[in-house]
Amino acid sequence: MHDFRIDLRSDTKTRPSAEMRAAMAEASVGDEQHDEDPSVNELTARVAALLGKSRALFLPSGTMCNLIAILVHCRPGDEIIAAGNSHLISSESGGAPAIAGAQIRSVSAERGIFSAMQAAAAVRPRKINAPTTRLIHVEQTVNRGGGAIWPIDVLQELAGFAREQHLAMHIDGARLMNAVVGSGVAAREFGDCCDSVWLDLSKGLGCPIGAVLAGSEDFIYAARRWKFRLGGAMRQAGVVAAAGLYALDNNVERLRIDHENARRFAEALHSIDSVSVHTPETNLVFFEIECSRMNASQLAEALARRGIGLGVESRTMLRAVTHLDVNAAGIDEAAAAISHILG
Amino acid sequence: MHDFRIDLRSDTKTRPSAEMRAAMAEASVGDEQHDEDPSVNELTARVAALLGKSRALFLPSGTMCNLIAILVHCRPGDEIIAAGNSHLISSESGGAPAIAGAQIRSVSAERGIFSAMQAAAAVRPRKINAPTTRLIHVEQTVNRGGGAIWPIDVLQELAGFAREQHLAMHIDGARLMNAVVGSGVAAREFGDCCDSVWLDLSKGLGCPIGAVLAGSEDFIYAARRWKFRLGGAMRQAGVVAAAGLYALDNNVERLRIDHENARRFAEALHSIDSVSVHTPETNLVFFEIECSRMNASQLAEALARRGIGLGVESRTMLRAVTHLDVNAAGIDEAAAAISHILG
Amino acid sequence: MHDFRIDLRSDTKTRPSAEMRAAMAEASVGDEQHDEDPSVNELTARVAALLGKSRALFLPSGTMCNLIAILVHCRPGDEIIAAGNSHLISSESGGAPAIAGAQIRSVSAERGIFSAMQAAAAVRPRKINAPTTRLIHVEQTVNRGGGAIWPIDVLQELAGFAREQHLAMHIDGARLMNAVVGSGVAAREFGDCCDSVWLDLSKGLGCPIGAVLAGSEDFIYAARRWKFRLGGAMRQAGVVAAAGLYALDNNVERLRIDHENARRFAEALHSIDSVSVHTPETNLVFFEIECSRMNASQLAEALARRGIGLGVESRTMLRAVTHLDVNAAGIDEAAAAISHILG
Amino acid sequence: MHDFRIDLRSDTKTRPSAEMRAAMAEASVGDEQHDEDPSVNELTARVAALLGKSRALFLPSGTMCNLIAILVHCRPGDEIIAAGNSHLISSESGGAPAIAGAQIRSVSAERGIFSAMQAAAAVRPRKINAPTTRLIHVEQTVNRGGGAIWPIDVLQELAGFAREQHLAMHIDGARLMNAVVGSGVAAREFGDCCDSVWLDLSKGLGCPIGAVLAGSEDFIYAARRWKFRLGGAMRQAGVVAAAGLYALDNNVERLRIDHENARRFAEALHSIDSVSVHTPETNLVFFEIECSRMNASQLAEALARRGIGLGVESRTMLRAVTHLDVNAAGIDEAAAAISHILG
Repeated sequence: MHDFRIDLRSDTKTRPSAEMRAAMAEASVGDEQHDEDPSVNELTARVAALLGKSRALFLPSGTMCNLIAILVHCRPGDEIIAAGNSHLISSESGGAPAIAGAQIRSVSAERGIFSAMQAAAAVRPRKINAPTTRLIHVEQTVNRGGGAIWPIDVLQELAGFAREQHLAMHIDGARLMNAVVGSGVAAREFGDCCDSVWLDLSKGLGCPIGAVLAGSEDFIYAARRWKFRLGGAMRQAGVVAAAGLYALDNNVERLRIDHENARRFAEALHSIDSVSVHTPETNLVFFEIECSRMNASQLAEALARRGIGLGVESRTMLRAVTHLDVNAAGIDEAAAAISHILG
Repeated sequence: MHDFRIDLRSDTKTRPSAEMRAAMAEASVGDEQHDEDPSVNELTARVAALLGKSRALFLPSGTMCNLIAILVHCRPGDEIIAAGNSHLISSESGGAPAIAGAQIRSVSAERGIFSAMQAAAAVRPRKINAPTTRLIHVEQTVNRGGGAIWPIDVLQELAGFAREQHLAMHIDGARLMNAVVGSGVAAREFGDCCDSVWLDLSKGLGCPIGAVLAGSEDFIYAARRWKFRLGGAMRQAGVVAAAGLYALDNNVERLRIDHENARRFAEALHSIDSVSVHTPETNLVFFEIECSRMNASQLAEALARRGIGLGVESRTMLRAVTHLDVNAAGIDEAAAAISHILG
Repeated sequence: MHDFRIDLRSDTKTRPSAEMRAAMAEASVGDEQHDEDPSVNELTARVAALLGKSRALFLPSGTMCNLIAILVHCRPGDEIIAAGNSHLISSESGGAPAIAGAQIRSVSAERGIFSAMQAAAAVRPRKINAPTTRLIHVEQTVNRGGGAIWPIDVLQELAGFAREQHLAMHIDGARLMNAVVGSGVAAREFGDCCDSVWLDLSKGLGCPIGAVLAGSEDFIYAARRWKFRLGGAMRQAGVVAAAGLYALDNNVERLRIDHENARRFAEALHSIDSVSVHTPETNLVFFEIECSRMNASQLAEALARRGIGLGVESRTMLRAVTHLDVNAAGIDEAAAAISHILG
Repeated sequence: MHDFRIDLRSDTKTRPSAEMRAAMAEASVGDEQHDEDPSVNELTARVAALLGKSRALFLPSGTMCNLIAILVHCRPGDEIIAAGNSHLISSESGGAPAIAGAQIRSVSAERGIFSAMQAAAAVRPRKINAPTTRLIHVEQTVNRGGGAIWPIDVLQELAGFAREQHLAMHIDGARLMNAVVGSGVAAREFGDCCDSVWLDLSKGLGCPIGAVLAGSEDFIYAARRWKFRLGGAMRQAGVVAAAGLYALDNNVERLRIDHENARRFAEALHSIDSVSVHTPETNLVFFEIECSRMNASQLAEALARRGIGLGVESRTMLRAVTHLDVNAAGIDEAAAAISHILG
């Protein structure tokens, strides 16, 4: 295994800072299974307010947030509409069908953003032997869509359609705060578009563990039952919730630095002949290499030998993710190394 | 509810003939749950031989055949590759995810036929958080593909790919014998391409109830457990299995008449200005109408008033299915009625 | 495999009579998946009326009736209260947990009949991590309880408790008509005690296939969805439903003959030294042998060689089931054979 | 909500000590989803060695350990043998049936300890429609059995039976180290009795979060897939794993103090007239009150007003759990308060 000085593989690689660790070490704690943990209670109250929801639930991961939302919204045989490139479909181990018995209908959408009209075309007719369309699943920002932000008006139109059709709507907010900072739209405006939404703490916000799922009182009541059933109920979880509180205070606004670094990286790559890259909207940079001497894996390997970590997406595609553990100098060094290796 | 003199809505509408009823009335029977029903045993032995498999299992429906095959081949979180327009996805009530916990990855294929290369592109990478690709699901003939027949060489290449990748392969044989009669390829050649395959008795073969699922000894052993668990185990099922035996003797070769009638119907429609239609390969005729005065539903309604039944697929698309309860005169009358109504 | 002249292994072994076969051969039929089968429609209407319910659903087996009722009443993680010796627990392949995700809490009850007080003790406290008690499951008559009939007052008290606690109540009516005939209580009085109830056609009523599940409009609507999803939806099912109609007309009252034969058999066994037997309430006779020379399996084997079939329940316990294919002479011959073999 | 000075409700209420927090604050961390967290890796290696298993997996809770073990050992429709009073049955939200589709067969065992003979009587016959007995589930120590320790010879005999019958065996080790300290039997001797076993960190060991599941390489490989699927995969989990490492070094041997305190408490209660209590084997004290003036809830409420927390088990039964946050003086104060209130 490599040790990366400049780790752009993912924003999940961030390590808690000294200040965050200090906040964790001083956290007030209690048994969160009985709602006795003051740090967890404070965190869930703050996230609920931030997202404009009645209540929220602390969970060990974003994957569990998606899974529980689906378990609450859907019954076995129900169908979820989601973008074909969504994390839900490719990267959650098939949990939605495996555990919730839900079928997923994928909508083709290059950047992962689809319209109300596309959703309408994906709703099943009400036939006895058809799956029942029940939920629209949206990922904000879209990971495999290059970190694209769902524009608030597109989301609002989709939400209107969902309400009209009595469909539930859920937002996977793995990088929701990147969308907030990147678009200038308040988190609660996104929250207003959906019945359930979550926030990941362990990506760009820099926490070691955790995500917070928000929704109505009834939704969270049912979600809490599933949290216990899945084994997601912890004890003195305040030790990690405290990191979340710290992050909400200190690590949200600074996401714009990550976005700047992503653009800086893309610009630097743009000048390399054998690289194709789009200007990123947030903190994810996907780029394609066309090089007779090496493929994406080989480039990543060459970079790894220099202590630089990048993700390999396909034979020709790589992904770099900017975050609070990589600064502009690191970005420049990574871009220069790529230029040197390919050049 | 209408009573249709000429019922082209589906080949599932066929009623047992007097001869078939006589065969049923004389059937030797026993408790099929303990393998004591001689008619069921004879039927499963014949279908196993026909399809080149070691054993077979009598089941109340084709939907249960698909479901059980998936339950045996897949574990929760596994993924099935299937054509986007497959019956499995649209018309089996989400049973695969609901009961087997399987995710379905749809391949775009207009006529429902996809290549080994398309399948290869749909196989997931072996990542800890990706669903595990496990099964390739093929529908022969393809209902929503206009009754298209998977050519044996395309199927064989796909089967070779499946074997190479250690994927299971399953054929939904709702209209398998139509493919056999339509292509001249023996049923067991199709059977050789897959690990499990079934035959529907209640469609073009004219039986009232039942389908037969075939596979290896181990496969059928596990399938039989699921048959009991799902409540598909019956008792003196010989009374309906006898219809299947009769059909295998009498109703297979005559499927070519249905195919001729389908072509006859398509040709007649072809001469109507506002109708677009392709030459059918088997017994399904999908056609599009473009008429300022009426949509597909209205045409179907107008036909129903004349005792003619057709299926409505969309605002502009209808489906006619030929079968042993409709003869050439019926076909001509139906075509003439459409011409008259639209003309 | 043996061929039994006198087959007392189970009332599921009954074969359709010539009259029943004639009724089947003449049945009006249609596509039951679209409610177009007149015989199925007549049967479900009659059974709904008989059991005092709004609607009913034709299904291929009693196991599917139980499974679907549980799927409709329960959500994953819910708990069912049932007698420890119930068919549901021991003989339905674990379908309730496997497919409905329901946990079963067994109540100790020798004859399978438990009181409201016992049920009350089995209801879980409302704790976040406890299963949610949702359904009381009753088997009428109780197979492993020696064919015992739940007295109507015990059932009514239990039903009152269920209503009070907002628990659903379901009756497994594998041998419900034996309870009706044996107790003189009308079927609808039993039906009034529960939210869902079913009737088996393929046991003492002598039909080859099928069971009918009854409940409210909403219940049956949801049940019908599960029928499709499980693959229990058939086509021209009137061919077997006709047998059910025949049985309701001809084979209900005669169940008292089976009960008389059961008592006749028990009395004959009573006089054998090494046999312990209770007077049966309905058509099931469980008896224990205590014999130094042979165990239950060996006795069954010796009887089988004489063309007499009995069920083996344990090393020392056997079960005989009387039904319309065994008359008093057969009963006497079976008892004499046992006396001879053990004597 | 009360704030308890002396919290005997559960050993899950323990809060991380200053030393433990310091260890957490200095923990080396990485992305545990990619096995890059050195603290998690060290912890799992140590626990695997301690329990005599090849590998181990860090999970957010003991409930998830049980659930994943069942998901790996069982298929839908399989049956688990467990004591009727087990935590699995009453306090895990029905997760085993809800998510793994497993049925649980409860064995009556007052202290939760059953013999190989009892297990043998609970194994299902190999019938097509019977659930398949697959797993024996043991809880060490037995919570609702008064903290009873499974004697190693009873466990070994059961393990021998399991092996002979090709059944898997799993130990729920919520309080395994209490059994180790209480019996003087090494942890790996218990581990040798089973295919999978886990250790809770958040009970008597005093950690805020986490449990470690151990088994063979193959078992852990499959378990890790389920960890991702359920949403139990975290990121820089070293911040909590470090607490586990600290606890293994510092908080195991001291469990004998908790056991002494439990006995001290029981002895003090013993001298109260209206209290019945058994001498505890480990750190759990269940006691019954018989008092005309108050029931268990009322006693707990009266104690709560004095800052003393106890658990209510039933109308007359209470539970006290000793742990590292309560010392002998606290124990004496709690006992004196009970004596005073009841006296």
